[in-house]
Amino acid sequence: MQKPSIPKGTRDFSPLEMAKRNYIFNTIKEAFLLYGFQQIETPAMENYSTLMGKYGEEGDKLLFKVLNSGDFLKSVTDEQLIGRNCAQLTSSLCEKGLRYDLTVPFARYVVQHRNEIQFPFKRYQIQPVWRADRPQKGRYREFYQCDADVVGSDSLVNEIELVSLIDYVFAKFGINICIKLNNRKVLTGIAEIIGEADKIIDITVAIDKIDKIGIDNVNQELSEKGISDEAIATLQPLLQLSGSNTDKLATLRSLLEKSATGMKGVDELEYVLSHADSLGMKANVELDVSLARGLNYYTGTILEVKACDVQIGSITGGGRYDNLTGVFGMEGVSGVGISFGADRIFDVLNTLDLYPAGTCVSTKILFLNLGENEASESLRTILALRSKGFSAELYPDCSKMKKQMAYADAKQIPYVGIIGESELSEKVITLKNMATGEQCKVTAEEIADRLS
Amino acid sequence: MQKPSIPKGTRDFSPLEMAKRNYIFNTIKEAFLLYGFQQIETPAMENYSTLMGKYGEEGDKLLFKVLNSGDFLKSVTDEQLIGRNCAQLTSSLCEKGLRYDLTVPFARYVVQHRNEIQFPFKRYQIQPVWRADRPQKGRYREFYQCDADVVGSDSLVNEIELVSLIDYVFAKFGINICIKLNNRKVLTGIAEIIGEADKIIDITVAIDKIDKIGIDNVNQELSEKGISDEAIATLQPLLQLSGSNTDKLATLRSLLEKSATGMKGVDELEYVLSHADSLGMKANVELDVSLARGLNYYTGTILEVKACDVQIGSITGGGRYDNLTGVFGMEGVSGVGISFGADRIFDVLNTLDLYPAGTCVSTKILFLNLGENEASESLRTILALRSKGFSAELYPDCSKMKKQMAYADAKQIPYVGIIGESELSEKVITLKNMATGEQCKVTAEEIADRLS
Repeated sequence: MQKPSIPKGTRDFSPLEMAKRNYIFNTIKEAFLLYGFQQIETPAMENYSTLMGKYGEEGDKLLFKVLNSGDFLKSVTDEQLIGRNCAQLTSSLCEKGLRYDLTVPFARYVVQHRNEIQFPFKRYQIQPVWRADRPQKGRYREFYQCDADVVGSDSLVNEIELVSLIDYVFAKFGINICIKLNNRKVLTGIAEIIGEADKIIDITVAIDKIDKIGIDNVNQELSEKGISDEAIATLQPLLQLSGSNTDKLATLRSLLEKSATGMKGVDELEYVLSHADSLGMKANVELDVSLARGLNYYTGTILEVKACDVQIGSITGGGRYDNLTGVFGMEGVSGVGISFGADRIFDVLNTLDLYPAGTCVSTKILFLNLGENEASESLRTILALRSKGFSAELYPDCSKMKKQMAYADAKQIPYVGIIGESELSEKVITLKNMATGEQCKVTAEEIADRLS
Repeated sequence: MQKPSIPKGTRDFSPLEMAKRNYIFNTIKEAFLLYGFQQIETPAMENYSTLMGKYGEEGDKLLFKVLNSGDFLKSVTDEQLIGRNCAQLTSSLCEKGLRYDLTVPFARYVVQHRNEIQFPFKRYQIQPVWRADRPQKGRYREFYQCDADVVGSDSLVNEIELVSLIDYVFAKFGINICIKLNNRKVLTGIAEIIGEADKIIDITVAIDKIDKIGIDNVNQELSEKGISDEAIATLQPLLQLSGSNTDKLATLRSLLEKSATGMKGVDELEYVLSHADSLGMKANVELDVSLARGLNYYTGTILEVKACDVQIGSITGGGRYDNLTGVFGMEGVSGVGISFGADRIFDVLNTLDLYPAGTCVSTKILFLNLGENEASESLRTILALRSKGFSAELYPDCSKMKKQMAYADAKQIPYVGIIGESELSEKVITLKNMATGEQCKVTAEEIADRLS
């Protein structure tokens, strides 16, 4: 018989991995709650019509579709079947698909429950999503997203709060980060100024390369992309944007003077940066005009988080969008949100070995099983320990000592309790510290104190 | 545009529902940890071959299948397509399905990771499962299962621990329960004694009806099912089984004297019952020979939990199985497990209104937004409160007071903090208790104490 396996791109999580993942999710959850976000959950399956067309042509292909139950061919003719147009057939065979992200289900939720929701609605959601992407290192077909969004408020207070939340979370993790901020209106302004609105992506890509290839090569690349010499000349201050955030803001102000939209973007950036500054962040918060992320999606603030001490892509990202729910018929709902990249945070914490001591300890004390009466007495002691909050267990079988101790080692259990014949008659417990090897005899009353 | 919806049988969970569900799951999780169980997670999608044939013919139909990506018709001929044999076509169109329960994925996990696992393996798993059942009240197409199992040990200590765990969890919830215990070997023994091994299901169904229809009607029903008069006469002590667990055990012993298997079952029941008794349970633990649950699956202990104060089906169930992993080629692994019915526990807690005070409180204090400078000062106070563990937020917009207070009410926020012009100059915060309506002025240093 073949050894069983799981679908490619998916993962099993062992107890050790779960302990680490729980640490990550619990830390993020706790922060979400401290900042006033409330949890929701949506179903793994959404209607096909809810999902299709929301992620571009490529996204449609990457959706996992769920086959209808029963006679799934009933609405399909023989001609259609033999025609073998898979894309077209799918909509007849499947009326459901798996969640591709948490944003579209959230938008659907907001519209569907609009009358029960008190706006502004601060929601968080931590659930897996599924994408039929080609699996590769760090890219999975099932992975968790951790999103927090505020919808129904266009106040920049939300941006400040989200930056503060990011700062809080990574400070808790002990990960040094840089929070990069940009604003879509600034990018729009740049495109307006140089009269090349359709080239904005080429421009941001070029700006991003300056450190790597130098300004001359960047200018050449811009020229090759068909950007006029005049426009390139206008862009020069932007390409050489440096110094403090204040310096950068000043350069942007003079450059974008003639674009009302661009100036609005600079105002917004300044507001968020100055508040982040006065609140005092651990993180380095930096204006970065090369930051574009899903340009078509964001309408205001754009943000991204990089780890300072590990070479890895963005570990958190987000921004403001002005028409999340429009696609479901509810216009004028502005929102801003962030998404923590749990898998990458997991990698960073592993690389830097930043898990707090005890993250992987589950059981505090294992009682050895040395016979029926001894085990019964152990169970009584264990029950008392649990009522005081200590995780405790009895080895279920009266196996060889070596095997029982190996179990304690494998589970990283820090203490072993022994009630044998002599302990039974003396009414004591032998307590062994597994790290030091030290042993001592304690009473049932004393043992809890020793474990604290 | 049509209002968006979700697939039938699935649910959105609102913040209020999530708060209650989190209370349930956290209580169960905490108990699992106290008892030494470790968490694992498995993918939502399993290979089609892992799932098919594991849940009977009906179960196969209830599996959700995931359509292959890309050209999903490539391995199907035109003849096969026009033949329209849906069941057969499915295996060509789909190589993956959604998890139907947590037991089969767990068995697959144990076999796949057998070399990394330290046995006995005490694992817990809390994840959603999907079934294409006809939705009805209390039955959903997506629901969570909460399972704890011990595999690789046939010691009855595991049964005792699971009974104790159930007792602990429901005591925490404040739900009065009866834990019903039976043993498959006793049922096998009964069938042996009366020479009607294939009628065991009819017999347990009949026993279960005694309270409702009386002994005469039960005997008549047994007769109609083709059970001989002699067998019915032999069954009489069983049908009238009553009194304490000790009384019932004595009756079973005399009845099953000639069945070695039956006597083994009685021994096992007695062992578990006597230990449950000496450990002292809150729950009423009761021997119930009519308890059969998935008869073909269990091989030893069978258990089920009923709520005393609410009419609802079983809220937890489980038992011992001796060949969980055999279907994946790993023989001889005995296991015992339980599964908490989260949705029904949710219903019971709602019916009896047993949620602890504060379950639905997320944010402790909302600061009103009374202008830019006032908001900045509020943000500083909020940050300090969060660092002390208080969940706090600032209303993001400088809206009308009424709207901001409505927000606090809707989110059940117990305190409102006000920093207006006068508070700014006096360097104080007006603190309002939303329950009593009381207001007082406090300093930034005092506010945390007031909230405690």
